[in-house]
Amino acid sequence: MAHRKLEPHEIEQALSQLNAETSQDWVVENEKLSKTFKFKDFQHAFGFMTMCAIYAEKQDHHPEWFNVYNKVSIQLTSHDVSGISQKDFDLAKKMTAFALSV
Amino acid sequence: MAHRKLEPHEIEQALSQLNAETSQDWVVENEKLSKTFKFKDFQHAFGFMTMCAIYAEKQDHHPEWFNVYNKVSIQLTSHDVSGISQKDFDLAKKMTAFALSV
Repeated sequence: MAHRKLEPHEIEQALSQLNAETSQDWVVENEKLSKTFKFKDFQHAFGFMTMCAIYAEKQDHHPEWFNVYNKVSIQLTSHDVSGISQKDFDLAKKMTAFALSV
Repeated sequence: MAHRKLEPHEIEQALSQLNAETSQDWVVENEKLSKTFKFKDFQHAFGFMTMCAIYAEKQDHHPEWFNVYNKVSIQLTSHDVSGISQKDFDLAKKMTAFALSV
């Protein structure tokens, strides 16, 4: 699939699929794919972030994220296409897998 | 110094000292000691965050921080005393040293 901004109906479909596959509750807020993960403590939260960081750097596609102690709030968007792209859904799926593995 | 919420005049004095010592521009916003650092790229930003994370965990005093690509926005407060404490100034000084070393 070419790298492009997804249409609203494509986002809706991809979001349903993501949440069905991962049993999670990602949402679209302010045109960004969003979720907050809560961990046991800071060590686990930052361990998760480190796994994501290395993956994101390899993909050259990075999250916007906020961390306070054991919580990590994530917002995914593709600045280069000014919207949500398939890359955001791919990253969300991977981040979810990392979160569940910590 | 006992761990306690600093008084406004103590914060003002500690802030002046921090900025004088580090040649940086930390500010107090919403009763949090705040600064945004900008790095060369994500790799450097996350390298900085990793140094801070290990230090913060050792001190058991953690930042609130937001990262998008090469930028890291930091807000420091001491939840246990509902305000800014000396620990926040100590962490700010250390984070500044890490930022300048990256």
